[in-house]
Amino acid sequence: MRTSIATVSLAGTLPEKLRAAAAAGFDAVEVFEPDLVTSPLRPAQVRSLAADLGVRIALYQPFRDPDDVDPARAARVRDRLRRKLDVVRELGCDLVLVCSSVHAAAVRDDDELAAQLSALADDASAAGVRLAYEALAWGAHVSDYRHGARVVALADHPALGTCVDSFHVLSRGDDPDGIADLEKVFFCQVADAPLLGMDVLPWSRHHRLFPGQGGFDLARFQRAVLAAGYDGPVSLEVFNDLYRQADPGRTAVDALRSLRYLADRTVPGTLPAAPVPRDWAFVEVAASGAGLPAVESLLTAFGLRRTGVHRRGEVDLWTRGPVRVVVNQRSAQDRARLSSLGLEVDQPHALAERARDLLAPLVHRPVGPGEAEIPSLVAPDGTWVQFCSTAPEWRDDFVPVPAPADVAPQGGFTGIDHVTLPQPFAGFDAAGLFLTAVLGLQAGELSEIPAPDGLVRSRPHTSPRSPVRIALNVGPTSATLRGRPLTGGHVAFATNDLVAVVDGFLAAGGRALPVPGNYHDDLAARFDLDEEFCESLRRRGILYDRDERGGEFLQFFARSVSREFFVEVVERRGGYAGFGAGNTAVRLAAQRVAPEED
Amino acid sequence: MRTSIATVSLAGTLPEKLRAAAAAGFDAVEVFEPDLVTSPLRPAQVRSLAADLGVRIALYQPFRDPDDVDPARAARVRDRLRRKLDVVRELGCDLVLVCSSVHAAAVRDDDELAAQLSALADDASAAGVRLAYEALAWGAHVSDYRHGARVVALADHPALGTCVDSFHVLSRGDDPDGIADLEKVFFCQVADAPLLGMDVLPWSRHHRLFPGQGGFDLARFQRAVLAAGYDGPVSLEVFNDLYRQADPGRTAVDALRSLRYLADRTVPGTLPAAPVPRDWAFVEVAASGAGLPAVESLLTAFGLRRTGVHRRGEVDLWTRGPVRVVVNQRSAQDRARLSSLGLEVDQPHALAERARDLLAPLVHRPVGPGEAEIPSLVAPDGTWVQFCSTAPEWRDDFVPVPAPADVAPQGGFTGIDHVTLPQPFAGFDAAGLFLTAVLGLQAGELSEIPAPDGLVRSRPHTSPRSPVRIALNVGPTSATLRGRPLTGGHVAFATNDLVAVVDGFLAAGGRALPVPGNYHDDLAARFDLDEEFCESLRRRGILYDRDERGGEFLQFFARSVSREFFVEVVERRGGYAGFGAGNTAVRLAAQRVAPEED
Repeated sequence: MRTSIATVSLAGTLPEKLRAAAAAGFDAVEVFEPDLVTSPLRPAQVRSLAADLGVRIALYQPFRDPDDVDPARAARVRDRLRRKLDVVRELGCDLVLVCSSVHAAAVRDDDELAAQLSALADDASAAGVRLAYEALAWGAHVSDYRHGARVVALADHPALGTCVDSFHVLSRGDDPDGIADLEKVFFCQVADAPLLGMDVLPWSRHHRLFPGQGGFDLARFQRAVLAAGYDGPVSLEVFNDLYRQADPGRTAVDALRSLRYLADRTVPGTLPAAPVPRDWAFVEVAASGAGLPAVESLLTAFGLRRTGVHRRGEVDLWTRGPVRVVVNQRSAQDRARLSSLGLEVDQPHALAERARDLLAPLVHRPVGPGEAEIPSLVAPDGTWVQFCSTAPEWRDDFVPVPAPADVAPQGGFTGIDHVTLPQPFAGFDAAGLFLTAVLGLQAGELSEIPAPDGLVRSRPHTSPRSPVRIALNVGPTSATLRGRPLTGGHVAFATNDLVAVVDGFLAAGGRALPVPGNYHDDLAARFDLDEEFCESLRRRGILYDRDERGGEFLQFFARSVSREFFVEVVERRGGYAGFGAGNTAVRLAAQRVAPEED
Repeated sequence: MRTSIATVSLAGTLPEKLRAAAAAGFDAVEVFEPDLVTSPLRPAQVRSLAADLGVRIALYQPFRDPDDVDPARAARVRDRLRRKLDVVRELGCDLVLVCSSVHAAAVRDDDELAAQLSALADDASAAGVRLAYEALAWGAHVSDYRHGARVVALADHPALGTCVDSFHVLSRGDDPDGIADLEKVFFCQVADAPLLGMDVLPWSRHHRLFPGQGGFDLARFQRAVLAAGYDGPVSLEVFNDLYRQADPGRTAVDALRSLRYLADRTVPGTLPAAPVPRDWAFVEVAASGAGLPAVESLLTAFGLRRTGVHRRGEVDLWTRGPVRVVVNQRSAQDRARLSSLGLEVDQPHALAERARDLLAPLVHRPVGPGEAEIPSLVAPDGTWVQFCSTAPEWRDDFVPVPAPADVAPQGGFTGIDHVTLPQPFAGFDAAGLFLTAVLGLQAGELSEIPAPDGLVRSRPHTSPRSPVRIALNVGPTSATLRGRPLTGGHVAFATNDLVAVVDGFLAAGGRALPVPGNYHDDLAARFDLDEEFCESLRRRGILYDRDERGGEFLQFFARSVSREFFVEVVERRGGYAGFGAGNTAVRLAAQRVAPEED
């Protein structure tokens, strides 16, 4: 698949956009007219810059409102196109996107429309340029691709073909399969979008996403485009309020990753298979000297014990049954922060090729002699994802320490249930794409949770083939503007007996996040709970949820260790598959009142 | 009008919300259940806090899904209500909002629904509580207020009445006049909203605004509520993503201002008339020692001369014809910033009462002996608005300086055309309400302008009775996150001969903001411009726009003085009334490339 991106998808000036696209590895760009009009670079300068950078200018766009019922105004359109053809030629480009008209004087008659487009194609052809006609979803008369292609067929001009754009097809709920029957597809634009119930125009202008970040079935769209025999570049045209303000270099990487991932979903096997993590190996908490005692006290109260010390020191392994927490004291900045996720995969090195193709090259920490080399990825938010196998065994890097003399508290953990990674405001969708494309997880439903300082959005990522669950969350802008994160990262341990775990934790001096009595009153009103059971939850500060099939979820939160890190323990009963999203507002409010351990 | 606000309209914890509402001066609050459930304060504690603060708890809300086709589940609903009635009584409240059901098992038969609501009203009545039934716009069967009121009438229970909510009525496009015929209005909620084409539920949950900030005709709604004989509190229920994260104290002031303004629009004359500014008296630029030379050079190049010095020094008056710029050197922080607007009004002291009622008390700068005391307001963004009359004459505070010897350049100004004030991210709607409610200006259409670092929103505020025009703009979040404002404030001088003004400016050493050649090429393609005219624009860096009736707009921008301040000169021809919004992207991109003087 040849790859392209419209300059409107990236923030910055035109040269910044071109450099970002080239650096990420795109083959080509579409030049969005306003990016050129607002640039001090003349078209010929843009042409040489693109040539120097090794990106082709595949398309110039858009040419709007190409037809008019008034002959004088139609003549003005031809004049306008001729002037634009000069620009296109100077750019070294040979294709112009022509959108179906949206104005009141648009031509309704297909024959007349075809004749006007044909006249424009004459002028284009004379300049060595072709026109790709696109049906805008909100076009005055031509608003679906079949209609657009009929007009192109009527015009029957070698310099006039069709541009298909996934947004304009799928936002209308159109069946994309008919694209396979189109004869003259000159260009293909793709964009994803969340499935929002709103007018198509503002949905298109503000909320488009890169493939894999939204709700469109783009693989099906793309298969139809391939079936039509199209072999030109597949080009991302993503109007998005957040990408408009994000670092264009990072956006371009995200964008190209989305296209490579789309190619693999379109033709499965294009990339090596995603390495499905078999289980959690560990989670790693980075703690400064100041934060370390609180982390160690918390783990101790939860019955974890320090069972290993890294050969090179400053990194301890804490365990209780299948729960393993690595405490890394090499960080100077963070009081305590979830810094790394260890995942067990078979043949970890097998993922190297897929990850590289998805612009997530493997990285390696410096290893000492004899230490296990753990292939790792760095997620967009900076969290390391380390891939652990049994050979070499990562645990061999830790020198066992003698078993502590004290007795572990009652109850036990069955493993790590999930982790949550907080994201920067504009990084939520990029991080989601990383988890789905590279790690092969599936994105779940978005929750919007009212917190005292604004809405928090949260989305789980899970796999039917793996117990690894990773939630992403992101606070409102103010959370950053006020200089503190609204949401922290956290790890949730799983147990089959939460009451016992909590009793052990409290007996060992652990401190629970205070849960309001009003919450348990409300619980009693909402659910038909046994009074004794409700009382046992209330006494321990345990939160509760129930799904429609009777599955139950019990959650307990320890007081936060830092603004960035806290620990939860959960008990799932009867196949409950959620994350207690309805309780998150209670947890966030409680953390606001009692922010962290002092 | 008694005033109330739902706690969900304000950010923070429940005590913070109550304190903010009380401090602003609200008579009452609605307690939004999740705010109580997430609070460590027990209902009785909330009751005493509210009593201490002097705000009444007028309503507890919401009680959802009150009916069910399944008798066992309907019995559960009664149990749920009884538990909530305990809470409501502890709160010292006697009214509960009951929403029409949205679930699949909602009762479709009105008689059965009335019977179930009546049974609930029996329980409420026994607890000394009344129920206000509200038709949610997205209710399963009951979704309009007439239907809701019919069910209430069928139930015919003294403890059951209707709650009307402007959003649920007006978002559906319903005619609110029928509210006048309702017999039992127990409660009234009001919210405004921008007229968005999207599903009602997310529109309601994210985009509500305070009255006067959106597009609903709330005065008409409110007149119908008054005609129904309702004399209870008018309560703001505003779900808004930005207000959820804004300072609750400021939001509460904004909110109460919106209600007072609504009362005046509902019954004109409730407040003293808005003082329509007759004209600009001056604009004031605050400059530090470091920024002063650039400001003075710029004004000089535009032909302004220092014609007065303030009696107490450090403040100069620069003039050219009717354009007056006060340069205030007393600011240490700002290189150069638009700090104050001087407006000519008749009888400036007449506005004191209206402003005070609208929570914008007059402020006075310290004045020296014999100086004019200029009554002023401070806009939400900190800009001073000073009201100048001829007696006392503000200009008398400036000691005239001898006329400069040099000759002013050709052409001249006809006055100040408009100013633009940049707003903080969450302050756009509050500032708009200030301009409309307090200054009596009318909000124009919102423009969304793509800039290199994100979308900029801009809205003009004008009056048919005044030449004063004030635009507000606000950049994307990143503009602040990256530590610099994306949009600056500016003043636009008006002229009848822009070419002459620009030639004079350039001849005097002024520096134009560089306008890309591509822009003028595009201009030639878009408009049928005389080539010589187009060339004259290109040579001078003048931007151009034309409206549908042939009115023309010429704009010239000097290089920015600072990131916060720049100067424009405009020429309006043939009744052009806009602001060249289509050119703003060009200006913003040019300012990005050449941000400011040296």
